[in-house]
Amino acid sequence: MNAEIICVGTELLLGNIVNTNAAFISERISRLGISCYNQCVVGDNMDRCLAQLKESSSRSEIIILSGGLGPTEDDMTKEAVAKFNRLPLVEDKKSRKAIEEYFAKRKMEPTANNWKQALVPKGAKAVPNANGTAPGIILETKSCTYILLPGPPFELEPMFEKQIMPYLASLQSGVLYSKTVKIVGVGESRAETMIMDMIDAQTNPTIATYAKAGEVHIRVTSYASDKKEAAKLVKPVVKELQHRFGSSIYTTDENVTLERAVMDLLVSESLSLCTVESCTGGLISSRIVSESGASDILKCGFVTYSNESKTELVGVKKSTLDKYGAVSEQTAAEMAKGGAKASKSDVCISVTGIAGPGGGTKAKPVGLVYIGCCVRGKVTVKEFRFSGNRNKIRILSATNALILARECILEYKNKIG
Amino acid sequence: MNAEIICVGTELLLGNIVNTNAAFISERISRLGISCYNQCVVGDNMDRCLAQLKESSSRSEIIILSGGLGPTEDDMTKEAVAKFNRLPLVEDKKSRKAIEEYFAKRKMEPTANNWKQALVPKGAKAVPNANGTAPGIILETKSCTYILLPGPPFELEPMFEKQIMPYLASLQSGVLYSKTVKIVGVGESRAETMIMDMIDAQTNPTIATYAKAGEVHIRVTSYASDKKEAAKLVKPVVKELQHRFGSSIYTTDENVTLERAVMDLLVSESLSLCTVESCTGGLISSRIVSESGASDILKCGFVTYSNESKTELVGVKKSTLDKYGAVSEQTAAEMAKGGAKASKSDVCISVTGIAGPGGGTKAKPVGLVYIGCCVRGKVTVKEFRFSGNRNKIRILSATNALILARECILEYKNKIG
Repeated sequence: MNAEIICVGTELLLGNIVNTNAAFISERISRLGISCYNQCVVGDNMDRCLAQLKESSSRSEIIILSGGLGPTEDDMTKEAVAKFNRLPLVEDKKSRKAIEEYFAKRKMEPTANNWKQALVPKGAKAVPNANGTAPGIILETKSCTYILLPGPPFELEPMFEKQIMPYLASLQSGVLYSKTVKIVGVGESRAETMIMDMIDAQTNPTIATYAKAGEVHIRVTSYASDKKEAAKLVKPVVKELQHRFGSSIYTTDENVTLERAVMDLLVSESLSLCTVESCTGGLISSRIVSESGASDILKCGFVTYSNESKTELVGVKKSTLDKYGAVSEQTAAEMAKGGAKASKSDVCISVTGIAGPGGGTKAKPVGLVYIGCCVRGKVTVKEFRFSGNRNKIRILSATNALILARECILEYKNKIG
Repeated sequence: MNAEIICVGTELLLGNIVNTNAAFISERISRLGISCYNQCVVGDNMDRCLAQLKESSSRSEIIILSGGLGPTEDDMTKEAVAKFNRLPLVEDKKSRKAIEEYFAKRKMEPTANNWKQALVPKGAKAVPNANGTAPGIILETKSCTYILLPGPPFELEPMFEKQIMPYLASLQSGVLYSKTVKIVGVGESRAETMIMDMIDAQTNPTIATYAKAGEVHIRVTSYASDKKEAAKLVKPVVKELQHRFGSSIYTTDENVTLERAVMDLLVSESLSLCTVESCTGGLISSRIVSESGASDILKCGFVTYSNESKTELVGVKKSTLDKYGAVSEQTAAEMAKGGAKASKSDVCISVTGIAGPGGGTKAKPVGLVYIGCCVRGKVTVKEFRFSGNRNKIRILSATNALILARECILEYKNKIG
């Protein structure tokens, strides 16, 4: 089965927003084993929408549209799909009621425009929207299935996960099942080489690798008549990957991030965390706090951007800064040890580096970063040389700090276990 | 003049990466006054590339392609454009030399594949790539102009800014000139209402508004025979906007971010900064550090996620936490005052709130956030009620903290000035 994605919105064509919907939908449908050969963006314009629908319906079985379901005159995705299929728009009673309730709950009055959102092409099914007033729409025609989704990601994403994914899965004759093996500390090309024989031999399940900043993800997807059968096909492949990559694998769950994995490890070992950040400036603590439940493990974080603060907040010796400099193995070590002490935390991650664009020298170039980790008094420091702009260096630093923390905690766990 | 964007890459169709190139290119060409009616994504597949080129060349004067210029077999954007236009690929001497130098500088050996990157369609111009081995390509044909760019954003963006923008500008008969008036503290619909008469009356310059999380940007763009003339047209409109929005405008420079504006204000008033963050967890300090020159103003940051750390690091009274709770006006005030004192900073920003998904109550729901700012001892606290998921609430909190800091510093400046 193949699908394509049409995102409707002039703001996308003007570059005012980045098209995260296309990536979100593509990623989800590829998990279902549905092929996607085209994504496109058109503005809020009837003629161009119709032209795109003509092109898309000639090559794809499923057409997923996002955006243009709002209450204003500009919004005309639904109208274009109805017109293209020569169908009238009719009111969906449940959708009208949902709109009434949405406004009543917020003690607001709907405007005349809002009722437009209860209209659907005749014969189409409305999909309730738990986070807004525009319902989604599924329209099955002889040649194509059209799925219309609201544009705002916080409306589209839950609707897609909870209602569209099961619908699309029901269109498939079999069942797809996948596990994502997430790996750190192994480069993409080395990871690929390590499993080249498996990739060459793949049929069902299939194996695909993806590189993310500092991580490699391997997705194993199987296809079978039912879920149990599909899971059975995936299991030995994941086991073989676990055998080959060992502790470099931090999770086999698609939804678990690196920060989540580090947090889970801290919780299971009853360890508390502190961060001491210089060039990352709070990026690591912010990634930890982005996951709920951070209060279970995070005692505090220090952003010690100035030399003064390194000394005053976490006790880096002035003599260390004078002798080795702020960006040095010694300073990273004292930051980690001092942060743990100042916050009475079991684990402390530290980062000090030169993110650029200025501040680099021949001996200490832009991209030189020291990352430290102290676990119950034992300090490890690693040197990194990243390339890229300021932002990329900072992101790679934060990711590698989480990777080092994971390694050090695992080492501690193995020693005491 | 109209252009369209074709991004080539299977990783985009699989949703493994978000298409930031399309947004970047769209935003830049819209600044030049070039209309963009279509963006699309196709995979690394010759037939589908050719089909897209056929479609695109029938409707657009300029076709901008990104991705697929790498050294591997998969990369075939250049080959597709050459084939579509029935042109052979020929070696560009300068590009070959650049590749030689790129590898020599890194003390690496180029592989046979790499020389493929020196090939261009006959008659095309190679565009040097300062950050990689794949040159860009400009191919002018009778019907269309093709611009081929490398996929990685850190190669594409500087090439586009420095080389493609001037080229595209040279195709225009006149000159476009724009200023972006960036506004905080005024909602989008209110801002639009305040300038509805100006929008209705616009011809040259044109006026367009864009909403960004917590900010409104108004872009004023004029068109004239030369830059001086174009700037002259923009000036009175910007002046009128300054008159209407007053100190809500933090910059009229497209490249100045809100964090940069706050930093510049701190530098000009010789004030140092400290942050004390709970639910934002380092997001504010990280935004400050993302700008170079943070060391001039940022003394340090505290991430006080736990109650303990609020007390120990910045001296929030235990009685305050007991009586009013961690998410309260009183706690935000003591965080700001205590952070300033602990770090001996002139200005301290504090944030405490409930980002969700858990932790909300009827009296203190998810989205309730208190933001404090202390400027030389004077503390201001504002209450906010944001909606959205954990991440959105955290981002809005960080933006509004920067906005409040700006307001408080301006008030201080006016008082002492």
